[in-house]
Amino acid sequence: MKNQDILTTMNDFSEPTLRRLPIYLQYLKGLESKNIQSISCSQIANDLNMNPIQVRKDIESTGVAGKPKVGYELKELIANIEKFLCCHIKNEAILVGAGHLGYALLGYHGFKEFGLEIVAAFDTSPDKVGKFINTKSVFHIDKLEEIIKRMNIEIGILTAPAAYAQQIADRMVNAGIKAIWNFAPVRINVKDDIIVQHENLASSLAVLSKKIDLRINKNI
Amino acid sequence: MKNQDILTTMNDFSEPTLRRLPIYLQYLKGLESKNIQSISCSQIANDLNMNPIQVRKDIESTGVAGKPKVGYELKELIANIEKFLCCHIKNEAILVGAGHLGYALLGYHGFKEFGLEIVAAFDTSPDKVGKFINTKSVFHIDKLEEIIKRMNIEIGILTAPAAYAQQIADRMVNAGIKAIWNFAPVRINVKDDIIVQHENLASSLAVLSKKIDLRINKNI
Repeated sequence: MKNQDILTTMNDFSEPTLRRLPIYLQYLKGLESKNIQSISCSQIANDLNMNPIQVRKDIESTGVAGKPKVGYELKELIANIEKFLCCHIKNEAILVGAGHLGYALLGYHGFKEFGLEIVAAFDTSPDKVGKFINTKSVFHIDKLEEIIKRMNIEIGILTAPAAYAQQIADRMVNAGIKAIWNFAPVRINVKDDIIVQHENLASSLAVLSKKIDLRINKNI
Repeated sequence: MKNQDILTTMNDFSEPTLRRLPIYLQYLKGLESKNIQSISCSQIANDLNMNPIQVRKDIESTGVAGKPKVGYELKELIANIEKFLCCHIKNEAILVGAGHLGYALLGYHGFKEFGLEIVAAFDTSPDKVGKFINTKSVFHIDKLEEIIKRMNIEIGILTAPAAYAQQIADRMVNAGIKAIWNFAPVRINVKDDIIVQHENLASSLAVLSKKIDLRINKNI
């Protein structure tokens, strides 16, 4: 299946909905620790500063139904969102490029609750190779293929400089990587059956700039 | 105007289109340095592994028209996208939280071409305060309000730990910040006339996980 087809299939779930579900989940888990039993849609919307109709629609898409005057049973709601987000599927990943962004990702505790574990990092710098970053070993990039194959890793996180991104992506794919999460500020081209998700800070900045521009020019 | 209204107004531009335009721009600038004069829609789509109909629609929304058999005049196309993305508007920002993610953002060269310049960073660590990160001064957080006011800064980038995010956001807003780019993994609540853009790595991971799950379960 081509990336284009996967995106079409994904429309059943809607990417904006998928992006909001982890936000609900983080919030709901916070409530759970406060021993709250049930929650209404409007309460979620209010606390998260979101639109209640959108919240209801998002939650319904995971298959949970609220009860009148009670709302959602908290444990059931959390379990359903987790199931929908595939948090139960354990995915191991390697990371290439232990610069500041790589460090930040290696230290990010939020991934594990979504099933992702970064098991090793790769770099070329003698200051980093052979050391540990947040309990993860940093290997020399020469070991990339060997470790991907030996550990049967299918997800590669790319935080290397733009100039090296394509060649590292090619090496990842040749070694067996099936999905690449690309943080390098450059598009990478791989064969159609590889999943690529580009994270582009400039894209986010463009949205922010436009919002600011709209407010200034319309004197909002 | 409330955030919800801004989002409605933004639908004229479509957020997905806005997110793709910087990708075209980076690619087109690369062509410019190779002395290429014109480019077709299908060539852009092919090189960037995107859908040509989508590319054409995105580009048309910036007001550029292609010529049959020639395509787009490269310089005009770049200028129009830049104008649309408000790259000409210079926005100064401050950053709070000079951890690894903060370092990564302070060192990111891609912001300047979109009009954003981070002019100062803030932290509490004695190892960082008083030093420079990529030519930007790191000040103690106690100086936050004073510097925002003195330099008349309107954009705040939040890369502090989740536990401090809300109180820092409140301090930013009280000092005059109008837009917050929040990288802390927690929602912040501010008054309606403040623009907030949340960057949530877990949200991106959710999309990636779902794509992987779709491929595995449907045996794609």
